[in-house]
Amino acid sequence: MPDSVQPAPTAASTDPAALAVMRGFPPPPEKTVRAVDTTSWRFPNTRWSFSHQRELGPSAAIRRGPASATVLPLSLRDDLDAVPFVTLDGRPTTWGESVEEMFTDGLVVLHRGAVVYETYRGALQPHIPHLAMSVTKSFAGLLAAVLAHEGAIDPGAPVTEYVPELAGSAFGDATVRHVMDMTTGVRYREDYVDPDAEVRFYGVAAGWSPPPKGYAGPTTIFDFLRTLQKQGEHGEAFAYKTCNTEVLGWIVQRAADKPFAELVSERIWRNLGAEEDGYVMVDSTGFALCGAGLNVTTRDLARFGEMMRLGGAVAGRQVVPRAVVDDIAGGARKEDFAKAGYVTLPGWSYRNQWWVSHNRFGAYSARGIHGQVCYVAPGAEMVIARFASHPTAANGNGPLDRVSLPAYEAIAAHLNA
Amino acid sequence: MPDSVQPAPTAASTDPAALAVMRGFPPPPEKTVRAVDTTSWRFPNTRWSFSHQRELGPSAAIRRGPASATVLPLSLRDDLDAVPFVTLDGRPTTWGESVEEMFTDGLVVLHRGAVVYETYRGALQPHIPHLAMSVTKSFAGLLAAVLAHEGAIDPGAPVTEYVPELAGSAFGDATVRHVMDMTTGVRYREDYVDPDAEVRFYGVAAGWSPPPKGYAGPTTIFDFLRTLQKQGEHGEAFAYKTCNTEVLGWIVQRAADKPFAELVSERIWRNLGAEEDGYVMVDSTGFALCGAGLNVTTRDLARFGEMMRLGGAVAGRQVVPRAVVDDIAGGARKEDFAKAGYVTLPGWSYRNQWWVSHNRFGAYSARGIHGQVCYVAPGAEMVIARFASHPTAANGNGPLDRVSLPAYEAIAAHLNA
Repeated sequence: MPDSVQPAPTAASTDPAALAVMRGFPPPPEKTVRAVDTTSWRFPNTRWSFSHQRELGPSAAIRRGPASATVLPLSLRDDLDAVPFVTLDGRPTTWGESVEEMFTDGLVVLHRGAVVYETYRGALQPHIPHLAMSVTKSFAGLLAAVLAHEGAIDPGAPVTEYVPELAGSAFGDATVRHVMDMTTGVRYREDYVDPDAEVRFYGVAAGWSPPPKGYAGPTTIFDFLRTLQKQGEHGEAFAYKTCNTEVLGWIVQRAADKPFAELVSERIWRNLGAEEDGYVMVDSTGFALCGAGLNVTTRDLARFGEMMRLGGAVAGRQVVPRAVVDDIAGGARKEDFAKAGYVTLPGWSYRNQWWVSHNRFGAYSARGIHGQVCYVAPGAEMVIARFASHPTAANGNGPLDRVSLPAYEAIAAHLNA
Repeated sequence: MPDSVQPAPTAASTDPAALAVMRGFPPPPEKTVRAVDTTSWRFPNTRWSFSHQRELGPSAAIRRGPASATVLPLSLRDDLDAVPFVTLDGRPTTWGESVEEMFTDGLVVLHRGAVVYETYRGALQPHIPHLAMSVTKSFAGLLAAVLAHEGAIDPGAPVTEYVPELAGSAFGDATVRHVMDMTTGVRYREDYVDPDAEVRFYGVAAGWSPPPKGYAGPTTIFDFLRTLQKQGEHGEAFAYKTCNTEVLGWIVQRAADKPFAELVSERIWRNLGAEEDGYVMVDSTGFALCGAGLNVTTRDLARFGEMMRLGGAVAGRQVVPRAVVDDIAGGARKEDFAKAGYVTLPGWSYRNQWWVSHNRFGAYSARGIHGQVCYVAPGAEMVIARFASHPTAANGNGPLDRVSLPAYEAIAAHLNA
């Protein structure tokens, strides 16, 4: 059958169990998913690999510690799947259809702290951590904001105060605030379909991809960051570039003198009532991919969002300062954000590595390509944690947002009707 | 200073914290430990890397599940360090000195189920899993024995009944029992200081070492096993060869149709009251290194030994059948074992991947190079879990046994005096 008439893949047609991806001891070669030959990044193998990251490369544990998990009360509702809404393209659909259409792997909706919707598909199960992609950034931003609140980091200080090694790079005259809010002027093309984009070299340095033949570039995150050069001015416009988060991660780790995984554990995971240890993928020298490497379970991501919704507290105990959460929820300058040109995100802003909608529910979110999200809607007393393996990796989740964003608003409205 | 007059390294002189191994963001190049350049296998870097395996390569989780950890009662004694004994070389020393001399990273001694001795050194902490090396084999052997007990594996059947792919290899006419007890006749040199030994190619297939330039050999465990050829006859002599365990792991996983990590979790770890998830290193296709890849905490290894000591039960509940434990504790034919020529292990035998001493305490143990051990002494109501990063990787732990074995017996006698 020629390509032109092949039906578009669906979640059902790419189900990893039905396709027998990684089934057998060993699986047949065409069903074997490996990092070394990048088959782990090839759709539909990603439907399996996003739930099996640690089996593909080095990682560091984010321990939950010895405390018991908090109980997530179950108050499952069977009326959500039928909730109708209209996509940004004007197409009528329902919540249930959108869950399937988004290649959802795991989804937990909390309303007033109770689980009202929960589903696992593809290769994901309740106890398995899923790759959070750029949701990781919001963890890094939250940590940075907490350290700033404590005075351990000065957002107004130059990046080089913490990382003098970056003096000769694009970040040589940037401030910590610029990287926190991604308003640096740096040549860094975050285009996943352009083979010459800097994000490809990030991939090699991160260990996501093996180096191409004859590659002589950086092979660690820290070395990679030093190669980046300036383009434009700092502080004028939001531009989503993962390198900012990796710089922020470098600042945070050096200021706290602790690896990212330990910081997330100490500052967040141990105090969240998490059910499972999380983990973060690390580069070949053991340093966390602060921009994309986090893996946690769906329920634990929902717990994280619920902590944010409640102003940084879990069961009445402050985990992160309320002022830090309020600052994120309040967002940043919409005019800086508008310059990035996201047609699906009108009136949004970006603060401390969180995407702030300024919508009627005051929703803000952590977002990752292929459909990862932690959507916190305080005005609707709702949190959505979603992991997915959508084939599209388009920058900013644009095509997915056309379905997901109205879906989230519809559910928020329905739950509060 | 010329090599000839350099003092021998000690635990104190190679302490990873004092040496600042992997300290800093990033550490200086000479303090950076990586898998890709094999610096992770170079002593004294191993003093750090044996406690950080998952940060160096792919791994699979051995989940402990949602249950609480069992409490290990503390009954610490301060009289153990002074217990005197004489090494097999006739040198008088003490338990405390031997702990230091063996480059101990973690050590837990249980007597009648209570912790009487516990120490963490080097890079190890109570909550951190340590590389168990060939202690892994005893987990694989125990799983195989459990499956045999249930009838899912027939020890008398040919290996090819489960793994027909091995028909053309050394294992083509071997039985499951031969690989369980390591009495196969297979050309496989387990010599860690011979660069031409088959164990080197195992290292490449396992992902422990990067392939040498121009390498065209097997790059996965399963492919590696198919290349091994016969040498001698099966069933005549014990010969310690890791390839047997990897074949056994293949049999076990195919018979149970589950990956090793899931089997260890379901059959052992979830029922042990373990404090932490363990993990196993996997090859580039995600399959466990059943011969050497296990990582668990010291306390959890002690819990595992205690379960064995109590005939397979934890808190009165059977985890593995008593008959399986009794069979291991009873050992195998001493005359087969004697042919291997271990001068430090006179009168021992090897059963289901366990080393059986037949000593006055009925001790049997799981053993791994560089000083890993789970020593179960039912007659002394004692269990010793020890992790170490001794520079010596000599086959069979011979040089270490000259100190360790009389130390264990001395402590056993002392505790029961």
